[in-house]
Amino acid sequence: MTYGGIEAGGTKWVCAIGSGPDDLRDIVTFPTTTPKETIARAADFFANDGSLAAVGIGSFGPIDIQRGSPTWGHITTTPKPGWADTDIALSLANALDLPVAFDTDVNAAALGEHRWGAAIGLETFCYITVGTGIGGGGMANGKLMHGLLHPEFGHMRIPHDRARDPFDGVCPYHRDCFEGLASGDAIHARWGRPPEQLTDERVWKLEADYLALGLLNVICTLSPQRIVVGGGIMHEPSLLPLVRRRVTELASGYFDAPELGEAIDDYIVAPALGDRAGVLGALELARLAVTEHSSEPRT
Amino acid sequence: MTYGGIEAGGTKWVCAIGSGPDDLRDIVTFPTTTPKETIARAADFFANDGSLAAVGIGSFGPIDIQRGSPTWGHITTTPKPGWADTDIALSLANALDLPVAFDTDVNAAALGEHRWGAAIGLETFCYITVGTGIGGGGMANGKLMHGLLHPEFGHMRIPHDRARDPFDGVCPYHRDCFEGLASGDAIHARWGRPPEQLTDERVWKLEADYLALGLLNVICTLSPQRIVVGGGIMHEPSLLPLVRRRVTELASGYFDAPELGEAIDDYIVAPALGDRAGVLGALELARLAVTEHSSEPRT
Repeated sequence: MTYGGIEAGGTKWVCAIGSGPDDLRDIVTFPTTTPKETIARAADFFANDGSLAAVGIGSFGPIDIQRGSPTWGHITTTPKPGWADTDIALSLANALDLPVAFDTDVNAAALGEHRWGAAIGLETFCYITVGTGIGGGGMANGKLMHGLLHPEFGHMRIPHDRARDPFDGVCPYHRDCFEGLASGDAIHARWGRPPEQLTDERVWKLEADYLALGLLNVICTLSPQRIVVGGGIMHEPSLLPLVRRRVTELASGYFDAPELGEAIDDYIVAPALGDRAGVLGALELARLAVTEHSSEPRT
Repeated sequence: MTYGGIEAGGTKWVCAIGSGPDDLRDIVTFPTTTPKETIARAADFFANDGSLAAVGIGSFGPIDIQRGSPTWGHITTTPKPGWADTDIALSLANALDLPVAFDTDVNAAALGEHRWGAAIGLETFCYITVGTGIGGGGMANGKLMHGLLHPEFGHMRIPHDRARDPFDGVCPYHRDCFEGLASGDAIHARWGRPPEQLTDERVWKLEADYLALGLLNVICTLSPQRIVVGGGIMHEPSLLPLVRRRVTELASGYFDAPELGEAIDDYIVAPALGDRAGVLGALELARLAVTEHSSEPRT
């Protein structure tokens, strides 16, 4: 069976056709412009392939993933201009006349890592992306994390030492929440240059300290068996080791587990699927939608 | 069938015999002294009843709930004097020659609320206790929250405005973590008097603001369908309404759900089972251990 997958990001969309990392028949990336133009471009890409059984979408958010809700498949309160209250899933389902599965970009990436990557066999784990914004998802007890809505790791509150970092934060809703302090947009605004141009070690030490606070809070809340951290900001090679060290410092020996100490290199890890975790997970979302559509939904 | 239940707290143990809130045949409360004395007292209470099918324990922690671990059933790194590395579950199983189920006090309370109380029918919800310390647990996707270890809501880090609250915090591991700032011990140490003697509204406004930060972080991480907040500190009647109001303020309209706005009174709630949620949940832990022991463990 062949599926379509979309990683619908706030900056770019990645669309793929195939069934997994060893069977990616076609993949395309284009910038996120207006909803109408972007959705049409994705629909065009898939419309040329008559073999698809379903399409999976991992979308930036917040989104409505509540089955039966009148706004299921919509992006809801995003501050991204033009994208609030945008239907994605039904637009594509109607354009392509195919079943469409819909979840957050981070849940899709988590699903990809669970099927083929760094989270195979785990029941409870998280996937965090640190890019333009910060998002988080994962699985709890073997199923993707859904609840009242879906996880929004980026909007938790973390300590902000204004003596060390007087920067106010960039979140339009909460100012200095986790995303407001530690996202790519926050780094850019704080230091006045794009993250990829920043080499001062103070930049990355501060970033690591914020990321560690966010990760520690996720550990305290969910107790994941592993945390996968992806996203463009993590391309900075010094960052992941700094984050690991800081998490163990913050844990201070409280957690009776080697994963929060000497084994942390296997606990906080990069995605095994790299930047393709999201779009591959979207293919898996599509597969599950078809193979499980008559039984209890797994996602 | 009749079961034994223990809410094994750091201050007191509550032991009950029965099968639910309408069938509590015997219940006893005694102070937590030394492990040997406390465990023996519980064993004596149950030993007189020959009808028990199993005993369930909801324990203060951190504890080892990993099936197959050599220290399963132990309290691990607790700072409580004399109680670190204490076997509870096997001691009782051997003393009583009965199957014993073992989980955190907050997961037990969550289970009680799920069976008989404020969380009936929910798949993903949290139970938070605010007492001497702060603990949290719940269910994710229909099962109790387990992972690498178990949730430790109390040790997440939250913003601490030292200009408003110069108090250093009381957590021996992390100083001003959530528990270090907002537990009953923290309130007592900050204001110099036991919480039940404090009537100044500044006390409860500050407490509500900290609790709201902790709850918001749980909402961002897990997206629970409801949060049940119990524990002795919540007996202060002004507190829950203040917490609800502050959570909606912190959310700032970001979450597209009435539960984070006008419907918050049904979202952040007191335990329907009151202070018996823990011991009743422990009875349910015991029941599940017997009725599900040959199949996939539900807890």
